[in-house]
Amino acid sequence: MDPIIRPANPDFRWDGVGVHPYKEDQLDAEGRPIFRAITRQTLFSEPVLGCELRYFEMAAGGYSTLERHEHAHAVMIFRGHGKCLLGGEVRDVGANDLVTIPAWTWHQFRAEADVPLGFLCMVNAQRDKPQLPTADELATMQTDPALAAFLAPLPNPATSP
Amino acid sequence: MDPIIRPANPDFRWDGVGVHPYKEDQLDAEGRPIFRAITRQTLFSEPVLGCELRYFEMAAGGYSTLERHEHAHAVMIFRGHGKCLLGGEVRDVGANDLVTIPAWTWHQFRAEADVPLGFLCMVNAQRDKPQLPTADELATMQTDPALAAFLAPLPNPATSP
Repeated sequence: MDPIIRPANPDFRWDGVGVHPYKEDQLDAEGRPIFRAITRQTLFSEPVLGCELRYFEMAAGGYSTLERHEHAHAVMIFRGHGKCLLGGEVRDVGANDLVTIPAWTWHQFRAEADVPLGFLCMVNAQRDKPQLPTADELATMQTDPALAAFLAPLPNPATSP
Repeated sequence: MDPIIRPANPDFRWDGVGVHPYKEDQLDAEGRPIFRAITRQTLFSEPVLGCELRYFEMAAGGYSTLERHEHAHAVMIFRGHGKCLLGGEVRDVGANDLVTIPAWTWHQFRAEADVPLGFLCMVNAQRDKPQLPTADELATMQTDPALAAFLAPLPNPATSP
């Protein structure tokens, strides 16, 4: 670990920090990409801290994976606004809002159709693999009108023209 | 740990997050307050993460403690701009810049005279107590012109009118 200052560049990029786009080749139980138009940048990953700080950004209309896992997330919205599914709730989120995501809590972030959504995420460096919802779990979520509306805007690439 | 969304309020405050001003009653080896016009807000402190995310803000002309310690800091400048002493260097820092502060590295942040400086700091929840420079260590730092200039602007309350 060395003393380093990494200047911020325009458009939420940083000197010496790689931008990792997620490949949209994983499909959910309904045949849709499990995430869309999202990139990850690992801002800090220092073994002595045991935690990482990552910056995720969804382009307008993008979304993160709907998932749950043993490890927790501490999230700060950093740019733009959008919606967040957190457990059984859907909430509007905007810049600087704080989101605590405990173990085994379903969560997903979605940018609005016309604006990107970026967030910082503090997480343990050692963590378990996320679980995706099964078709049954997704169907159960969709019985809630708010969650159904949140999950609805996705085009289904398997059936759309 | 519960799922929580804490909305951001104006002026870098958050619902349910206390603002802790630092009392300016500790003096350095030259009789000056060891920090000035700085507040701390703990945004996340979750035992399962083992790390905390704090937001520190210095009013215009304020500064953090010049200190070093075993524990490391991962800092992101969040608001405004200023200067940072990091080891043997003084650097300009501004919004979104990333600063890695390893173990036992002298560090101090200073807001410019006319603008606040706010930063996020990721740190281990369990950490050692900071060390302040002795008069000898301070004198050694001041033999470097850049560090001397950085440390100079402080009025000395013990001798100023």
